[in-house]
Amino acid sequence: MAAAQSLLNLGTKIIAVGRNYAAHAKELGNAVPKEPVLFLKPTSSYLQNGGTIEIPPPLESLDHEVELAVVICQKARDVAEKEAMDYVGGYALALDMTAREIQSSAKSAGLPWTVAKGQDTFTPISAFLPKSMIKDPDNLDLWLKVDDELRQKGSTRDMIFKIPFLISHISSIMTLVEGDVILTGTPPGVGPVRSNQKITAGIAGFIDVHFDVQKRQRRIHLHPKP
Amino acid sequence: MAAAQSLLNLGTKIIAVGRNYAAHAKELGNAVPKEPVLFLKPTSSYLQNGGTIEIPPPLESLDHEVELAVVICQKARDVAEKEAMDYVGGYALALDMTAREIQSSAKSAGLPWTVAKGQDTFTPISAFLPKSMIKDPDNLDLWLKVDDELRQKGSTRDMIFKIPFLISHISSIMTLVEGDVILTGTPPGVGPVRSNQKITAGIAGFIDVHFDVQKRQRRIHLHPKP
Ligand SMILES: [Mg+2]
Ligand SMILES: [Mg+2]
Ligand SMILES: [Mg+2]
Repeated sequence: MAAAQSLLNLGTKIIAVGRNYAAHAKELGNAVPKEPVLFLKPTSSYLQNGGTIEIPPPLESLDHEVELAVVICQKARDVAEKEAMDYVGGYALALDMTAREIQSSAKSAGLPWTVAKGQDTFTPISAFLPKSMIKDPDNLDLWLKVDDELRQKGSTRDMIFKIPFLISHISSIMTLVEGDVILTGTPPGVGPVRSNQKITAGIAGFIDVHFDVQKRQRRIHLHPKP
Repeated sequence: MAAAQSLLNLGTKIIAVGRNYAAHAKELGNAVPKEPVLFLKPTSSYLQNGGTIEIPPPLESLDHEVELAVVICQKARDVAEKEAMDYVGGYALALDMTAREIQSSAKSAGLPWTVAKGQDTFTPISAFLPKSMIKDPDNLDLWLKVDDELRQKGSTRDMIFKIPFLISHISSIMTLVEGDVILTGTPPGVGPVRSNQKITAGIAGFIDVHFDVQKRQRRIHLHPKP
């Protein structure tokens, strides 16, 4: 097992779970899923604590989703639920930043969520919390503020699919490797954050993070489409 | 730049382009896109030449999509089209194996394509071909056979979005790192492959690959959903 600090650097993927809190599924008008909704985010979307979340023009805002991140510590394939926690190295607090307009268009058109979810800085993440620090990952209070306004507050108690089930289910679909991350879904209260606002978020009693939000400055202009 | 043989091992993502050949978009009843349709596949889905493609039960088949893979050789962000080829280390032949029924359900429900595209063995890939070997990547003949039947045949000439545009466009959305792969879309002729069939495929004059196809054997049975 790699040193805690470098574990996240070893990972090659982020598997995010959508609609894993019934109250959040409902706030976006979605059905509560019968099986986990899974999508990938690239590790190039990580942003370390204190960094700046970038809104890609012409968008004026991104949606915040505060989530518990589960960090995998060893190769996992077809793992049984009762053994799944052996594959957890620790946790982190992460934000699953979402270009909601792009996601909505993609959903209507039956297209992937990659551009809505996978851009650089779209996965702000805290320092790594070793598993030994968190005795009960099913009883953590997540919170998120935009400037001084509390926007999200929820407990991992309300996750529809719990961590062992998620690891078992995901590892039946794709091999997880050391450093891979599962984003376990967001409690209700998601909403837009704009340029010049600040996000603070945390796992109550364990860690907090802060991020600035700015419009992205592009170095080049793309040529028109062929 | 890493040695050619290990370049693919350094990558952390596969960015696949959907509907990049007009004739393939049409065969699936899709509109020809105005901008590239992008989705992610995990590097855990790679399968080396000679390996066995696994059909996850209860599926009885997967669809084959033969594609030119472009291998990135250095970190790329906001790359201009005219400089884009400097970021190409080489090429490979890849198959974008697709669980079409799962993809169709996902499309109807506005859900991600991850489970349809991202499972282990769903990205069979050839040895790496250094850029110096391929003078004109826009004029390569791709082919794919199932057993003795020629199923796909097409030229990269017919790609709607060419390699420099794809690199520029994708790098405006997410940073590409050394070893990342772009799958550039498939020519027409996609269709199902079943257990006990064999796939052979190639880039005419450069390389060919062969893969067996079998039903996946799961080591464990998943518990019922919570
Ligand atoms: Mg989320
Ligand atoms: Mg990845
Ligand atoms: Mg494809």
